[in-house]
Amino acid sequence: MGVIALLSDFGTADGYAGVMHGVILRINPQAVVVDICHDIPPQDVHAAAFVLSTVYPYFPLDTIYVVVVDPGVGSERRALAVRTPRGTFVAPDNGVLSYIFARESIEEMVHLTNARYWLSPLSDTFHGRDLFAPVAAHLSLGVPLRELGHAIQDPVRLPIVEAAMQQDGTISGQVLYIDRFGNLITNIPRGLLSPNRSWRIHIADREVIGLAKAYASAPDGELLALIDSSGYLELAVRNGSAAAMLKVNRGAEVVVTPIVDKTDARKEEYR
Amino acid sequence: MGVIALLSDFGTADGYAGVMHGVILRINPQAVVVDICHDIPPQDVHAAAFVLSTVYPYFPLDTIYVVVVDPGVGSERRALAVRTPRGTFVAPDNGVLSYIFARESIEEMVHLTNARYWLSPLSDTFHGRDLFAPVAAHLSLGVPLRELGHAIQDPVRLPIVEAAMQQDGTISGQVLYIDRFGNLITNIPRGLLSPNRSWRIHIADREVIGLAKAYASAPDGELLALIDSSGYLELAVRNGSAAAMLKVNRGAEVVVTPIVDKTDARKEEYR
Amino acid sequence: MGVIALLSDFGTADGYAGVMHGVILRINPQAVVVDICHDIPPQDVHAAAFVLSTVYPYFPLDTIYVVVVDPGVGSERRALAVRTPRGTFVAPDNGVLSYIFARESIEEMVHLTNARYWLSPLSDTFHGRDLFAPVAAHLSLGVPLRELGHAIQDPVRLPIVEAAMQQDGTISGQVLYIDRFGNLITNIPRGLLSPNRSWRIHIADREVIGLAKAYASAPDGELLALIDSSGYLELAVRNGSAAAMLKVNRGAEVVVTPIVDKTDARKEEYR
Repeated sequence: MGVIALLSDFGTADGYAGVMHGVILRINPQAVVVDICHDIPPQDVHAAAFVLSTVYPYFPLDTIYVVVVDPGVGSERRALAVRTPRGTFVAPDNGVLSYIFARESIEEMVHLTNARYWLSPLSDTFHGRDLFAPVAAHLSLGVPLRELGHAIQDPVRLPIVEAAMQQDGTISGQVLYIDRFGNLITNIPRGLLSPNRSWRIHIADREVIGLAKAYASAPDGELLALIDSSGYLELAVRNGSAAAMLKVNRGAEVVVTPIVDKTDARKEEYR
Repeated sequence: MGVIALLSDFGTADGYAGVMHGVILRINPQAVVVDICHDIPPQDVHAAAFVLSTVYPYFPLDTIYVVVVDPGVGSERRALAVRTPRGTFVAPDNGVLSYIFARESIEEMVHLTNARYWLSPLSDTFHGRDLFAPVAAHLSLGVPLRELGHAIQDPVRLPIVEAAMQQDGTISGQVLYIDRFGNLITNIPRGLLSPNRSWRIHIADREVIGLAKAYASAPDGELLALIDSSGYLELAVRNGSAAAMLKVNRGAEVVVTPIVDKTDARKEEYR
Repeated sequence: MGVIALLSDFGTADGYAGVMHGVILRINPQAVVVDICHDIPPQDVHAAAFVLSTVYPYFPLDTIYVVVVDPGVGSERRALAVRTPRGTFVAPDNGVLSYIFARESIEEMVHLTNARYWLSPLSDTFHGRDLFAPVAAHLSLGVPLRELGHAIQDPVRLPIVEAAMQQDGTISGQVLYIDRFGNLITNIPRGLLSPNRSWRIHIADREVIGLAKAYASAPDGELLALIDSSGYLELAVRNGSAAAMLKVNRGAEVVVTPIVDKTDARKEEYR
């Protein structure tokens, strides 16, 4: 049947997230509806895009994702459905699917225009309920994408900043996401950090030497660097918040340099 | 089978909401249990009544709603089950179903007295777990309402303040609900705001001219008025919080006056 | 089939809780996955152990619990699966199952070592996703515990502090848990508080006389004592927060003394 997985900034204080379940179950009573999370910071398209990128690789391959962080609701922004080998994504065309576009092959992509598959009347402020949820429910019943709108090829893509390694081995990256524990997740992939070298990580006037294996490797309250569960460099504080300790925001610069010890340095000098 | 939809002020920090799922699944393993939301402000019967009113029109018609905001738990307040053509509602008799009573026809309403359908022992502090959840589960198995208690006809109803239009066209209403985005949702229905006129909205010493189509119609940080997704006048700030900007609470007065331009005004004078 | 019930400190701001649903449904598309709660304070093993103790008695007997509050993830701490007549529990070996060990008989307990039933690669920071969720999914498909690892008998147990009654009838206990309403739940069971006597409850320089039946028995804003929904003494403030009023934390001392009126006292004196 396929799972329908919901991701939004609707919060859980109102009925906005819950009502999407109702809309879906009314159209497809057999649907299995899962909440990925609804506490994306309001209107934070980047955060939603990032969270989506960390979860979709783990869901069933035929999952239908409904991603609604939608500051442009009611404007001319388009609504999309995108089929990939890793699931079908239904979302506003505002860049929230940028990681999907960067990582998966697009089998079919449509601009959702067929109002037959929406609720009527369509509100101007809540397409999560009136458009995206019903479209997902109809998809789960087997309605083909081409029925839902017309093909497009130019979706909005947010720039995805890749970490870069310079000639001298220095890697320069940035904080992409701060999670509920205050962990700082960067865009520096494990692949750049050869385990054969030792690394010095600079962030916000602080320095961390070496990569820890896990949170438990460091004493309480100490800043550490490690590879996070998605394979990227993360700064963390055991039983604390790295974000609070360092007072940094998303986008903060992270520079990683290989450690060359004095012996090595002298060798290089005299070679 | 029917869906069981839960709405409460239990929060998600403890196991109070989760345990209701367990109770229901133990009685009816086939039940489909959906969380509408559990973050109603503690003991805020008005907020729960309002949120319920915005979601039930979108759920399957045979949904069973469990609505537990229950400051009077353990006192003499009654527990109710109410069948309507739009679903069956199980809740304390404290007015939390007021919008249902105002808008739907009651096919059957019982005071829940048959302890056979409750957990035993019944606690004095948690009827969500011990009474409302099991009753909903038994209803989902087909137990008829009359089995669960005896018919009543005098449930508690909160006064529902309707917005009123005065002789001169002025509409006076109030803020009914403030959502997680800080949007102020009023009791002024779309029907009072003829699209053929232009309107001036007064709230808390501020004035908004005209209705925006959607949040995206206004610049960031600007107060705007629009019709919300349930069809009522809403004050909002794009990418901000109207509640924070205006420092108003539920119940704040909202006055809407039709705009009469000078030409019109002079015509009226000389007519 | 059995229900899989999730309890964690992952919060709902990121995708950490949601992704466990995906992992489980990918392995067992028929699984019924329930969230008990994901807002345990970060790394608070005691709180998770307590919340679990209040909910598992209400779930179906064949429920599989996934309890992930796991400050030691990636270290040498073991991962466990424990079968009891009241369900199977999957969790890190850090004491989070202490109440289960104290109250239920262990039919089988294994140290989870068979990586065949985990995701691969296994991260060092997120065993909820990579180890505990997949193990639970395989259990729900009927994989026997002995397949998952090797038997052990020495799990970590947190000391569970029992309230004690002294010779003179004084009961000394402590606050075990503070819930979202600010209610203070103690370790003093109903059984120690004979209904034939009257009791004086001391906490943080305050005194409450007698047990209320329910929250609604007291005026707004007044401190009251009552038996909570799990059968333990609780301090609460009607429509308020006892934790905020008393400024106490978990572990705060609670002393209960029987009230002996003067007549009784004199009788004792002259007997």
